[in-house]
Amino acid sequence: MEAEVKHPLMSERDLFEAIEGSMRTFIAGRPLPVSLIDAISYAIFSGGKRVRPLLSLRVCQAVAGKQGYERALPGAGAIELIHTFSLVHDDLPAMDDDDLRRGRPTLHKHTNEAMAILAGDAMTAMAFELISVQVEDSLIAQRLTHELAAATNAMIAGQVYDTMGGQDAMLEPIEQLRQTHRHKTGALLRASIRMGAIAGGASEDQLESLSIYADAIGLMFQAVDDLLDVTQTTDKMGKATGKDASQGKLTYPGLLGIDGTRGEIKKLLTQALEALSSFDSKADPLRDMANKLATREK
Amino acid sequence: MEAEVKHPLMSERDLFEAIEGSMRTFIAGRPLPVSLIDAISYAIFSGGKRVRPLLSLRVCQAVAGKQGYERALPGAGAIELIHTFSLVHDDLPAMDDDDLRRGRPTLHKHTNEAMAILAGDAMTAMAFELISVQVEDSLIAQRLTHELAAATNAMIAGQVYDTMGGQDAMLEPIEQLRQTHRHKTGALLRASIRMGAIAGGASEDQLESLSIYADAIGLMFQAVDDLLDVTQTTDKMGKATGKDASQGKLTYPGLLGIDGTRGEIKKLLTQALEALSSFDSKADPLRDMANKLATREK
Repeated sequence: MEAEVKHPLMSERDLFEAIEGSMRTFIAGRPLPVSLIDAISYAIFSGGKRVRPLLSLRVCQAVAGKQGYERALPGAGAIELIHTFSLVHDDLPAMDDDDLRRGRPTLHKHTNEAMAILAGDAMTAMAFELISVQVEDSLIAQRLTHELAAATNAMIAGQVYDTMGGQDAMLEPIEQLRQTHRHKTGALLRASIRMGAIAGGASEDQLESLSIYADAIGLMFQAVDDLLDVTQTTDKMGKATGKDASQGKLTYPGLLGIDGTRGEIKKLLTQALEALSSFDSKADPLRDMANKLATREK
Repeated sequence: MEAEVKHPLMSERDLFEAIEGSMRTFIAGRPLPVSLIDAISYAIFSGGKRVRPLLSLRVCQAVAGKQGYERALPGAGAIELIHTFSLVHDDLPAMDDDDLRRGRPTLHKHTNEAMAILAGDAMTAMAFELISVQVEDSLIAQRLTHELAAATNAMIAGQVYDTMGGQDAMLEPIEQLRQTHRHKTGALLRASIRMGAIAGGASEDQLESLSIYADAIGLMFQAVDDLLDVTQTTDKMGKATGKDASQGKLTYPGLLGIDGTRGEIKKLLTQALEALSSFDSKADPLRDMANKLATREK
């Protein structure tokens, strides 16, 4: 009860629990081999913060009010399935070849490569299944499917750009960097926000404003990440720092310097907040999230 | 014109061209890196016979008449994208480790493993995107998405059963074999047929009959495959024969003997044809397909 008073739009913890419960029920209910369900569950329930699903639910509340979040749950779970599949496949030996994620063995280390490939594939199909099964309004289901599918492919395109190159060579380096990030991390973040808005019945104007907010926080998230990569110690970040720069990848500090990157973050935060100017206090959690992303220290 | 007279429901060649054109336009229109589009095109346009899309279009014609096939095109393309992604991922070193497919290097040999993983992932999302973009009726789009997503996961489950085991141990061996095939090859074949029916506006009774037809020809296809594997020379099959039996996999001839398998094929053909008894001559191509599958020699 106290939490309700402090957080008129529900606490983050309550929304988090709603997301976890919804995903757990859906995944456990699939008629699949136990080993496959176990592999998927290992990857999905591994201590993730559910940044994208929470954004989706908060956007839905900004549009449709406190209880509106329920309408965004299927899309939110679908987004997290896509996000998790991308982590599982990115960790594979043929890709980033990572043995650890969030302090635990990656899925292909925990099981085997074949299972990690198949579990990732199954999570992708399951994301679209979740929307088709749980969204009652068919037109909304179709729009959510379209948003998620296009974003998934944009994310994959970003992975191709990042690991194999191929960005538009006519662009300035800073625009090539933005192109990579808009795809690799931005597309799914943008989809989280747009899908929450669509599920909540947003107007075209609202959807447009929220998309601008999405693009700004997506790039901001990456600029902060790059900045922390060069300014923080490995200890604080929980991963090797300076890795991107040493691999010769394009980064914000590499292109704009540390002060220039701080200026870019400030500019993007202003863009994000201005995009929300026509929203009332129901969008306050979105304003808080932008502020937190701009000032995070790990 | 002559073809029209000979084939009142359009020639297979015309339907084939319609499928190729539809997929080519859709894939080329995606805003993705050229290298990724090239990889996907290499895998998709490699001389496949389009068995599943053709089935889908023929079913749609059986329900909705000659021109009805157009309504089934988005689903048919989506099914072929899913089928192709599964081949690309199954060929990977961590899975079947195949260097050749249809006489050409497999995608990971033609490009590299990372690209083959990413291209497979992109084809999956693209399948759902295709349905969401091209199917006009939202309720039908939702039903097609559900069919395809559930079938994709059933297919992946079949791959798990086939390579890692885990079938229901309480079942008799012949039922374990059927369980594997119903998943691994049957689910997508069944989806092809059901999706063609749904796109064509089939009644529940029609959908039920066509699902029985689908299950019968799915198992029949596999029984014929197993039979050819032990009775044909490697030369005629274009691949190593006797491979499944030598790997200790469950097969129809292994469980029922050669004559028993021939009896099973006959029984399944009868089931398939009986399931079509309430359909008129528009279902003749489906009857022909069942007969051809039962008597094929490679």
